[in-house]
Amino acid sequence: MTTSTQPSVVYGRPVNTDGVPNLYEGTTVVPWTPPEPGIDNLGISSVDTFAVPGVGEYTVEFDGYVRVVRSEPTSSEWASAEVYTNLIEMKMTGECEELGKITVTLNPDCLSTGQIRTPFDPYAGEGPSAKACRMAVGAIFDMPKLGLKLINREPIILTIDDVRQIPPAGSPGKGQIYRMLPLHDMKNPKGEPVAYVTSLRFRMGGYLPQEAF
Amino acid sequence: MTTSTQPSVVYGRPVNTDGVPNLYEGTTVVPWTPPEPGIDNLGISSVDTFAVPGVGEYTVEFDGYVRVVRSEPTSSEWASAEVYTNLIEMKMTGECEELGKITVTLNPDCLSTGQIRTPFDPYAGEGPSAKACRMAVGAIFDMPKLGLKLINREPIILTIDDVRQIPPAGSPGKGQIYRMLPLHDMKNPKGEPVAYVTSLRFRMGGYLPQEAF
Repeated sequence: MTTSTQPSVVYGRPVNTDGVPNLYEGTTVVPWTPPEPGIDNLGISSVDTFAVPGVGEYTVEFDGYVRVVRSEPTSSEWASAEVYTNLIEMKMTGECEELGKITVTLNPDCLSTGQIRTPFDPYAGEGPSAKACRMAVGAIFDMPKLGLKLINREPIILTIDDVRQIPPAGSPGKGQIYRMLPLHDMKNPKGEPVAYVTSLRFRMGGYLPQEAF
Repeated sequence: MTTSTQPSVVYGRPVNTDGVPNLYEGTTVVPWTPPEPGIDNLGISSVDTFAVPGVGEYTVEFDGYVRVVRSEPTSSEWASAEVYTNLIEMKMTGECEELGKITVTLNPDCLSTGQIRTPFDPYAGEGPSAKACRMAVGAIFDMPKLGLKLINREPIILTIDDVRQIPPAGSPGKGQIYRMLPLHDMKNPKGEPVAYVTSLRFRMGGYLPQEAF
């Protein structure tokens, strides 16, 4: 299931997958407790807005799954623990009339990496010792109706705040996009961007059954 | 002056430097007008905050220069023109007691890329047809007092809003950092981050005299 291509772009810390158990529906999650390493097989949904210069702006709802490998926590204490993550598989599909069906998968040329740690700037609205989750993602947006496969060359930074359990299943999150994130035609990655993501909001789902994969 | 190393990470569109003139102090900048290609040799200042887990948070003022190559505009009309940029050289120095002297240069393993275009979401406070400038940067933070050279693996996204002339000399800008940007030890780039940038604000200076380089 996982690609064996060696990525040329690595956005953060690689996490070992050897011998790490796959976790599916039925896994117990304990709040405020750093968990043993695992591969989380989770649902995900997302609402992305794409701007195509001179053509228009389109908002698309996506639904699908992710597989995330988590490292050994750096501490058994919740407050000081850091956990590193790699997004090892993703598939989301969405559709709109103008762009047709869109399938989003990981770009195998990028290692999509993340981490969960206590933020340096805790928000007033967050629970005590709530953590911050972030992930830098390289994706492929396949749009067969337009004959385009689009890639981002700057990572998409996905963040979840107020994390009280690992994984943060059920939490809403946001793509930290300032005004526009350029998307390039995979066939012409050194050319001008052909579209932009201008907004991205997502929600982590819960553990999926093994049969879903 | 420009490094000849081939970067393995390219954050956007490469811009040709062959035959592109260097521009220094005395160059005329015409507002609301897409300029001919050039290499802008500009001053820059920045205030960066670094968080070192378990040690502290330090705010450092930097001062130095950048060299930015600009592409041919995609249109001679200001409103529709897009201009692509590469940061081809940077040197900034700053100092604080705890971290010592810090020198910031470009990471030759990354091609730092950017663009100037009309945003999809114009702000009320911006001038008519004001453009948005963004640059994705890979840097090295050399901290000899700590014996560390730190690199970012996610790009630092520098943005300038309300751009009424190219280059946007004199404009304030911001590093779009959500909570924390991980910095890795150059000697151990696959290890855990050793520090974070938690805030970055900068100001583009004007053209510098040729003797400054």
